[in-house]
Amino acid sequence: TFSRGIQTVTLIPGDGIGPEISTAVMKIFEAAKAPIQWEERNVTAIKGPGGRWMIPPEAKESMNKNKIGLKGPLKTPIAAGHPSMNLLLRKTFDLYANVRPCVSIEGFKTPYTDVDLVTIRENTEGEYSGIEHLIVDGVVQSIKLITEEASRRIAEYAFEYARNNQRTSVTAVHKANIMRMSDGLFLRKCREVAENYKDVKFTEMYLDTVCLNMVQDPSHFDVLVMPNLYGDILSDLCAGLIGGLGVTPSGNIGANGVAIFESVHGTAPDIAGKDLANPTALLLSAVMMLRHMGLHGHAKKIETACFDTIRDEKVLTKDLGGNAKCSEFTADICRRVQDMD
Amino acid sequence: TFSRGIQTVTLIPGDGIGPEISTAVMKIFEAAKAPIQWEERNVTAIKGPGGRWMIPPEAKESMNKNKIGLKGPLKTPIAAGHPSMNLLLRKTFDLYANVRPCVSIEGFKTPYTDVDLVTIRENTEGEYSGIEHLIVDGVVQSIKLITEEASRRIAEYAFEYARNNQRTSVTAVHKANIMRMSDGLFLRKCREVAENYKDVKFTEMYLDTVCLNMVQDPSHFDVLVMPNLYGDILSDLCAGLIGGLGVTPSGNIGANGVAIFESVHGTAPDIAGKDLANPTALLLSAVMMLRHMGLHGHAKKIETACFDTIRDEKVLTKDLGGNAKCSEFTADICRRVQDMD
Ligand SMILES: CC(C)[C@H](C(=O)O)[C@@H](O)C(=O)O
Ligand SMILES: CC(C)[C@H](C(=O)O)[C@@H](O)C(=O)O
Repeated sequence: TFSRGIQTVTLIPGDGIGPEISTAVMKIFEAAKAPIQWEERNVTAIKGPGGRWMIPPEAKESMNKNKIGLKGPLKTPIAAGHPSMNLLLRKTFDLYANVRPCVSIEGFKTPYTDVDLVTIRENTEGEYSGIEHLIVDGVVQSIKLITEEASRRIAEYAFEYARNNQRTSVTAVHKANIMRMSDGLFLRKCREVAENYKDVKFTEMYLDTVCLNMVQDPSHFDVLVMPNLYGDILSDLCAGLIGGLGVTPSGNIGANGVAIFESVHGTAPDIAGKDLANPTALLLSAVMMLRHMGLHGHAKKIETACFDTIRDEKVLTKDLGGNAKCSEFTADICRRVQDMD
Repeated sequence: TFSRGIQTVTLIPGDGIGPEISTAVMKIFEAAKAPIQWEERNVTAIKGPGGRWMIPPEAKESMNKNKIGLKGPLKTPIAAGHPSMNLLLRKTFDLYANVRPCVSIEGFKTPYTDVDLVTIRENTEGEYSGIEHLIVDGVVQSIKLITEEASRRIAEYAFEYARNNQRTSVTAVHKANIMRMSDGLFLRKCREVAENYKDVKFTEMYLDTVCLNMVQDPSHFDVLVMPNLYGDILSDLCAGLIGGLGVTPSGNIGANGVAIFESVHGTAPDIAGKDLANPTALLLSAVMMLRHMGLHGHAKKIETACFDTIRDEKVLTKDLGGNAKCSEFTADICRRVQDMD
């Protein structure tokens, strides 16, 4: 796994608890001798020429050079007209696929024990087009835009993902009974792409039915692919099944090999700087990143250590049911990683 | 409760298992001496002048006269251009509010024990406008239409419902961070209406956050109000929490006092006519109907008998975990109803 030498990754620590959990990840990576070197960048949006909000050039250059980024939580900007940082990042780097593996964590009690699925969300269009109009007073329309191009791209990503990750089925989630043209187009592209992946089972399901079945028995689901808004909803729902955003990793895959892995929880300003944060979501996102980079050995080692610490129940942060500090939880994972050598 | 004398209700038995479960409900109503007389009507859509699909006039007249309907499942039509019967009914009678109380049923095991909430879905517009266009080859748009009028109407319904049903809070569910104008308008109307209901607590929440929190701890939710598609999703999700569509009642409230109560499960053609169906969803919908008509005593009696039968676990249909026939399950509820006299 060391064959490619040390690779540089852009690290965006983020706001609130972001710096603490980033430090935790760096420590664990060091203990695991992961061949990664970090290039820290800040992404607070700046106003570019013409008053348009943009990612600072140093962050953009770093990402374009390194291709791979790891990102902590960013606070919601309050300036009028300021876009969500997450949306701006997706747009800037054309991060078209949001990927969230949701796997039950042994020892972390939730109502479900056998979740093992992946949501793949189209990240660039659909209900997030941003096109809206006032038709007449009191009547407003929002436009959901679905393109053949983006639908095919996300479908192909989903099937490739399934094939490369020993997954057996892909389910397209839609409401083509209601939005016959837009979701219909999305669905048609999924069907077409499915033809090229005969080794992967393809099914289609209405979004409402998926939600209903998901909370009754999530074990039947494998890879799910869907338009933007449905992905926003389902990815959070599924995160809830395994314990919430504090333990759920996420990756945003873009064109040209760019990818940003991130924890999707908030900045938790109330506990920021107090050494109380739980770094699990960022750590597991970093593990996804290692896999994406082909560093499977290091990924496995870190993931195992993290799950062992959680299963052991002795050194847990408060949100996980314990009273350990972030640094103690981190040290426990480091120790386990080192013991594996 | 008998003061108004016997009232006539339009009964649409529906397809598949519809007739069996309708018979079950009629038997239980008879045992409970509910002051209801049924007017049976068929609603298989017919082609009207100009080729437009419409509800048969006898069904329409019956509903317009009686105002109140009870409806079993309808099979999905397969003729091209044939609308969903549910959509056609909503449109024909301007059934603007879909109301679904989701309450955990004691003795029916699901991962959750303390669900007690109501979803209120705007039923006439939003993503269900049916307006879609092909912009250029490979680019399609669907239009989500939100009006001040419909948003105010559903918000008012939700607050009235909360007030009249001893509920303490209403949560508006939205994605106004993304659809600023359309969901923004919906949200603004909710806020305005909330001003007139100071006795009811008002909160706002993103749809994704609601889904996440819902599967982690549904006990915090009370009345939820939302645009059409979000309601489609959340109402099914919440049904899943308490055991699925087989035990979840539903009511569609319209303008001019018209209301149709219905089981939202399918027609189950595989078991139709075999005396194996579970009439619970239709029965609990009929109980909602009784409450809507002010017949609280009869509603309570039937509901209690139904829940007692389920809690007792001795006479259950197959989908509820037993091996009783529909008629046996029905007889058990009838017996309990009669024992209460
Ligand atoms: C912050 C918000 C714009 C975003 C979304 O709606 O996509 C969030 O919910 C997410 O899933 O990343
Ligand atoms: C059958 C379909 C048109 C319908 C909908 O999407 O509204 C269904 O899911 C419902 O909730 O009644």
